[in-house]
Amino acid sequence: MKIIASPEYVGKWGVYELAVEGPSDGNPFTDHAVKAVFSSKQENITVDGFYDGDGIYRVRFMPSFEGEYAYNLSSDFGEQVDGKFTVGAPEEGNHGPMRVLNNFHFIYEDGTPYFSIGTTCYAWVFQNEELRRQTLEQLEDSAFNKIRFCLTPKHYIHNLVDPVTFPYEGTPIDRSHITEENFQTGDWEYDRPNNFDYTRLNPKHFQFLDEAIVELGKLGIEADLIVMHPYDCWGFSTMTREQDDLYWNYVVARFAAYRNVWWSLANEWDLLKEKTVDDWEHYADILVKKDPYKHLRSIHNCRQIYDHSRPWITHCSLQRTDVYKSTELVDEHRVRYGKPVVMDEVCYEGNVEQGWGNITGEEMVRRFWEGVARGGYVGHGETYLTPEDIIWWSHGGKLHGTSNERLKFLAKVAKTFPKSGLKPVQMAWDAPCAVAEDDMPEMGTPPSFILMYLGFNRPGFRQWTLPKGASYRIEVVDTWDMTVTDAGIHSGFTHIDLPSKQYMALIARRVDE
Amino acid sequence: MKIIASPEYVGKWGVYELAVEGPSDGNPFTDHAVKAVFSSKQENITVDGFYDGDGIYRVRFMPSFEGEYAYNLSSDFGEQVDGKFTVGAPEEGNHGPMRVLNNFHFIYEDGTPYFSIGTTCYAWVFQNEELRRQTLEQLEDSAFNKIRFCLTPKHYIHNLVDPVTFPYEGTPIDRSHITEENFQTGDWEYDRPNNFDYTRLNPKHFQFLDEAIVELGKLGIEADLIVMHPYDCWGFSTMTREQDDLYWNYVVARFAAYRNVWWSLANEWDLLKEKTVDDWEHYADILVKKDPYKHLRSIHNCRQIYDHSRPWITHCSLQRTDVYKSTELVDEHRVRYGKPVVMDEVCYEGNVEQGWGNITGEEMVRRFWEGVARGGYVGHGETYLTPEDIIWWSHGGKLHGTSNERLKFLAKVAKTFPKSGLKPVQMAWDAPCAVAEDDMPEMGTPPSFILMYLGFNRPGFRQWTLPKGASYRIEVVDTWDMTVTDAGIHSGFTHIDLPSKQYMALIARRVDE
Repeated sequence: MKIIASPEYVGKWGVYELAVEGPSDGNPFTDHAVKAVFSSKQENITVDGFYDGDGIYRVRFMPSFEGEYAYNLSSDFGEQVDGKFTVGAPEEGNHGPMRVLNNFHFIYEDGTPYFSIGTTCYAWVFQNEELRRQTLEQLEDSAFNKIRFCLTPKHYIHNLVDPVTFPYEGTPIDRSHITEENFQTGDWEYDRPNNFDYTRLNPKHFQFLDEAIVELGKLGIEADLIVMHPYDCWGFSTMTREQDDLYWNYVVARFAAYRNVWWSLANEWDLLKEKTVDDWEHYADILVKKDPYKHLRSIHNCRQIYDHSRPWITHCSLQRTDVYKSTELVDEHRVRYGKPVVMDEVCYEGNVEQGWGNITGEEMVRRFWEGVARGGYVGHGETYLTPEDIIWWSHGGKLHGTSNERLKFLAKVAKTFPKSGLKPVQMAWDAPCAVAEDDMPEMGTPPSFILMYLGFNRPGFRQWTLPKGASYRIEVVDTWDMTVTDAGIHSGFTHIDLPSKQYMALIARRVDE
Repeated sequence: MKIIASPEYVGKWGVYELAVEGPSDGNPFTDHAVKAVFSSKQENITVDGFYDGDGIYRVRFMPSFEGEYAYNLSSDFGEQVDGKFTVGAPEEGNHGPMRVLNNFHFIYEDGTPYFSIGTTCYAWVFQNEELRRQTLEQLEDSAFNKIRFCLTPKHYIHNLVDPVTFPYEGTPIDRSHITEENFQTGDWEYDRPNNFDYTRLNPKHFQFLDEAIVELGKLGIEADLIVMHPYDCWGFSTMTREQDDLYWNYVVARFAAYRNVWWSLANEWDLLKEKTVDDWEHYADILVKKDPYKHLRSIHNCRQIYDHSRPWITHCSLQRTDVYKSTELVDEHRVRYGKPVVMDEVCYEGNVEQGWGNITGEEMVRRFWEGVARGGYVGHGETYLTPEDIIWWSHGGKLHGTSNERLKFLAKVAKTFPKSGLKPVQMAWDAPCAVAEDDMPEMGTPPSFILMYLGFNRPGFRQWTLPKGASYRIEVVDTWDMTVTDAGIHSGFTHIDLPSKQYMALIARRVDE
């Protein structure tokens, strides 16, 4: 085999990539295989490679330790190759892959805290370069440290313009006669059938995704990859088991070495009518076996929540299933599943025609704080109608709403939260309250930290009996006007004046007397 | 017996009252009884009288038919008296007592439609005269056609000033050292015990209530009488069975003849810890046996809804039991109980310290429309902190909020609703929809009327497939800015532009083509 790339050095949790020349005739995706074993004192890991077009095969690996590594590269088309490289300190800003902390929270592998504030831009990667660039610039001007997006293009309302690439070789149906209206009524037919070859992937398409994941990594943003979804007229959601296996193995071989990857098996899994629970468990099996780095795994629902007690699911990734209660149910999900709860679709800020995308910025931010005060994490999305029909939720671009600034404020306040995360406690019937995840109020120990969120209520004052045996410094937080006001040190029965405004929170931090 | 009042004429559904002199020594409330039989061609009704102080006993009767009536008055202290009177047409504005229409709605006995828009002023009757007058003036400047209030005074936060009267003879505890703060902490003691005689009612107290019910009647407002409640430091909620019986019989004898009375057995029945379900069923029994006019009966909850399937309960009178969902559950209550659903406590507009009383006017009005679009009725209340601590929810007085004007608008729009009432139908996953109660869309008949309420969502447009086989005139209703805009006649798949504002509704009325 002719090796064309075999670096001598990589930072810990960076992508170490071997590239070799190989056959390009026949179907390289199905006819040939390449793999490598990477070994050091601490680990010994075998990973599959993938065909990247133009006769080039690549094998990617993410080392989890510093030190000397050896590799053994083998394929079905040439002699084995052995080599060595050194793994040094991680690059600046690389904190490693994401792990679960204290059952309900997240932490980077290097121990850096991670307070998840996600957003969704389903199809941003398949937009033109200017728009992709705009999306990244907007992300930089945001609090978002996770973004959900699809690996295949989206066919849906406001998504009737073809993507810049398709994941397979071939040509798509002609959608030019589909309008927003006849999409809804179903009163249209395909003029030209799809002629994709579902055994020949399109490396260019996946190179866009590589680039996206890398760029997000530079911004410190986790890439929550939606591997399958139902918004499809091209057959990508209705392939055979064999074709699906090819796709899933390719995706894992290609993307698993990026430290900022999370796996979302599906968006709205229950709308993929041709796939069964057996199918999803099978895909999960591929992930569990083929991703040696154990990136986080979940599966997002429409109306029916997937059984998140399944052992392969590392965290809840939930769309609200009730029009009125979204993050209000975070604490119930915590109890049911015993895992971090990410409510990553709680209705989007905007004014589109459908009820999943037309709440105010105020309500968006309220749902965030509500979820946080119940020990969970929340996802943003934006769906303002624009003349160009460029909508953040799918295309990315620019934000037009009012929640982004407030989510930056939330991120700032959250930096002062306990490192162990927040857990909900029953301290008031009319307001969600949380203490530090490692506080033990049930053992009679006054909690170190209390967050009380007052939501849409707007009291002129609040009377509050603080836990016995401790004094607390209280801060009044205006989550909308983004102020934090010191209200002094209190103990016992406490009266706190409030401005009769919605969206206020109280934070109490235990002080030593 | 010396009769001192026996009118010769009364309007139908008016109060016909006989008054006689009788013994005033001993305890007239327990020692003596007076009753009368009223008969006409159409009815023959026996009612108890009651002692009204100063040696005067009264018997009240509400005739339900026009024509000649005879009465036979008897007592344990004198000879029987017979007499006659004529019942003529009802006085203007008197539409008779309230009845249930089509299982889920209300109608006056004379067939006049009644769309319930209630409010709550628990203790308004026991305030000074100026304040009572103010309350009535404010009610006149409102859409309220029902008001909930207590028959006994209220001891609670913002209710620590003694009422102008007590329902029993005796003197109350001294509450002067109870503050808002030590009321909450419980850190106070009674200086002076109550010395009420729970066998001697105070007629003056009940005369205030008479006057209140009459004045409300003149304004066309139903008096939803809360007979018992738990906000008590005077022992009125913890009397013996015998004392309770005296009270209940007195209340029924005194108030049942007012055509605008509704019976609310309790406010927050589940907080009256000394009363059992057997007690409540016993009180209900008294009402069923002693109120010959079958005024509406219900019982209001705090955390636990009373079993509203009990046959004596004519309609649901509910406090929301969830902080987030109140009128969103109206349709579920309809299914469960098969009765009219009145959500008469859904949180109040205001800024008091507790979560039952500090939502915005917008949210108050939203909860109204949400309940209406689910086939129910809603109650208002207002709890703005004021320098004088005069709060509408308890004392009456003046309204300070923003919902009152919008509820007048709702009342105006509701006049155009179908006479049969509204029933919820599943027409959209993201917005409650109602049709006429007598529409039969499930039989394939296009409904005559559709209300779709968009609530906190604010679409820029709405696409809507109207029921097959009919055309509809669509109106766009801005429930907050109080406008109705004709959007023309539509059929089939319909696109309606909307202003991207919250609190919009769409009304579609079937038109003959």
